[in-house]
Amino acid sequence: MTTAQMDKYSEIYKEQVDILEERFNKLLVNEEPASLYDPCKYIITSGGKRLRPYMVLLSSKAAGGNFEDAYNAAVAVELLHNFTLVHDDIMDKADKRRGRETVHIKFGLNPAILAGDNLVAVAYRNLLKDCRINTAEIMDSFTTGLIEVCEGQSYDTDFETQENVTIDQYKLMIQKKTAAMVEMCCAVGGYLANADEKIIKALKTFGLNLGMAFQIQDDLLDILADEAKFGKVVGGDLVEGKKTYIFLKALEFAEGDDKKLLLEVVKNKGIDKSMVPMYRNLYIKLGVIEDARSLMNDYNDIALKALDVLPDTEAKENLIWLANMLIKRSK
Amino acid sequence: MTTAQMDKYSEIYKEQVDILEERFNKLLVNEEPASLYDPCKYIITSGGKRLRPYMVLLSSKAAGGNFEDAYNAAVAVELLHNFTLVHDDIMDKADKRRGRETVHIKFGLNPAILAGDNLVAVAYRNLLKDCRINTAEIMDSFTTGLIEVCEGQSYDTDFETQENVTIDQYKLMIQKKTAAMVEMCCAVGGYLANADEKIIKALKTFGLNLGMAFQIQDDLLDILADEAKFGKVVGGDLVEGKKTYIFLKALEFAEGDDKKLLLEVVKNKGIDKSMVPMYRNLYIKLGVIEDARSLMNDYNDIALKALDVLPDTEAKENLIWLANMLIKRSK
Repeated sequence: MTTAQMDKYSEIYKEQVDILEERFNKLLVNEEPASLYDPCKYIITSGGKRLRPYMVLLSSKAAGGNFEDAYNAAVAVELLHNFTLVHDDIMDKADKRRGRETVHIKFGLNPAILAGDNLVAVAYRNLLKDCRINTAEIMDSFTTGLIEVCEGQSYDTDFETQENVTIDQYKLMIQKKTAAMVEMCCAVGGYLANADEKIIKALKTFGLNLGMAFQIQDDLLDILADEAKFGKVVGGDLVEGKKTYIFLKALEFAEGDDKKLLLEVVKNKGIDKSMVPMYRNLYIKLGVIEDARSLMNDYNDIALKALDVLPDTEAKENLIWLANMLIKRSK
Repeated sequence: MTTAQMDKYSEIYKEQVDILEERFNKLLVNEEPASLYDPCKYIITSGGKRLRPYMVLLSSKAAGGNFEDAYNAAVAVELLHNFTLVHDDIMDKADKRRGRETVHIKFGLNPAILAGDNLVAVAYRNLLKDCRINTAEIMDSFTTGLIEVCEGQSYDTDFETQENVTIDQYKLMIQKKTAAMVEMCCAVGGYLANADEKIIKALKTFGLNLGMAFQIQDDLLDILADEAKFGKVVGGDLVEGKKTYIFLKALEFAEGDDKKLLLEVVKNKGIDKSMVPMYRNLYIKLGVIEDARSLMNDYNDIALKALDVLPDTEAKENLIWLANMLIKRSK
């Protein structure tokens, strides 16, 4: 892809994010009671990359539809994503999100629980607005995405106290917690465009594998990123004792004292921030950074290959640009 | 209605509850992870009157459909109702429900939040199974029911700290928190049967007003019921300082020392259990018990009148029986 093309797609992305932001700013403004809608508005106007709604728009266009008929559905998937953030932050006892107080810190536990619940409902309401065809399929995809994200979050919580987590179990967890929602975004886009089953299947494969790549990249960034750029503590996963792909792979590769060091993280449910560089060096020594990069690239390749069956359009090119941007991102 | 007829409808209700119980017992048995599905199974197999699913079945049949094509939708509304119980119990810090520990007490806060979220998703999944026609209308009704119950719960929470609550505000709250879901059950039943708009409208009016009557009756039972039969503390609403219809009406009617006594409840956010009989006598003296009964009967009359446009069938008679049973119930 030429630099000019990349600049063009970057421009389209920014334009669409602006349109989406305007929709989020206008959403729910006249709703009552304030105790319910203020926390909802607070989270949905707190920014973020808006990748999931953009995937709906691009998938729909790549499948023969257009942006205009997919904006409500795009808003819906972002609302659903924001619901997961609100409830996950409660469960993870997180104080900050996107540089601001989390919803339960700012508004209290009960309003945060209810706001999350309501975001799910408002998501369905918005999705329904764009259901001119394939209503059952769209609703089913969306609902499956919601179920999988609940299952994924449960597995993730289980892993905190589970001593032995296999790589396969980890992959199933991120598939459900992260990738299933990206898969759903692409499927919904396809159904909105009334695409045939072959195209839908391709879009789903693209979304699922891109979601997997995205999560592996997230784990990589956590340990490798530039703290100033990344916007959160580097090595946070190690500090919290999270069993990421990199960590589990390191455990698999390590022997002797190296293995003991890694088992310390499990035993103590995390490490002190000062020890992050030492563990980073261990990861590099064990070759798990390269291993994770390679796995991420494999997922990305499968994702891109799936797009072969789609007609060659600007929207398809745009999806390819998005996939490549995501695995090269620095935050 | 003759005693023989009443016995017959009572028998049909029991039969259908048994069928529903069997469905709830079989639901989710093979799902994983256990950390997510065990709390879900725990709440959905904990009994209850199963009134909402029964309303779906009866409404559908009264609108020309049949039970068989409405069971999944019936299960869906009960799942949605159970979601509200799980999250409301967290917010109300309730320890017991139906004689057992509440979900968050038994499984912990995080699993309870997630189980509630998942119940919503599983509800949609089950609802979709019965969407052969009118999918958008059914999904829209269901989603509106979910939004209203979130709004209603928010108003209810607001009222706890709001000094002045008007009767109209209270009515809006119970309409959203309780009646909207009953209205939705009846609407969904109608749509499943592919009824025309006139029938749907009648079923919605029936459900909404029956729901209002049901909630007023609930408030009445709280202060009047036989403790052994009722299964929970009589006067619990006063103990917790809840601003029920009866309480707000008493506040409106009372003067002098009576008014002071009532304002004490607001000021102290509840009373000691030993003072319940004194307040009950005050309610009786002020005539608010009679007033509430009269309001409940008004709602019930509107509900029953709405059924006039439905063809005279056994299912319609059964709906009438159910409405009358609900406002005469002792628990």
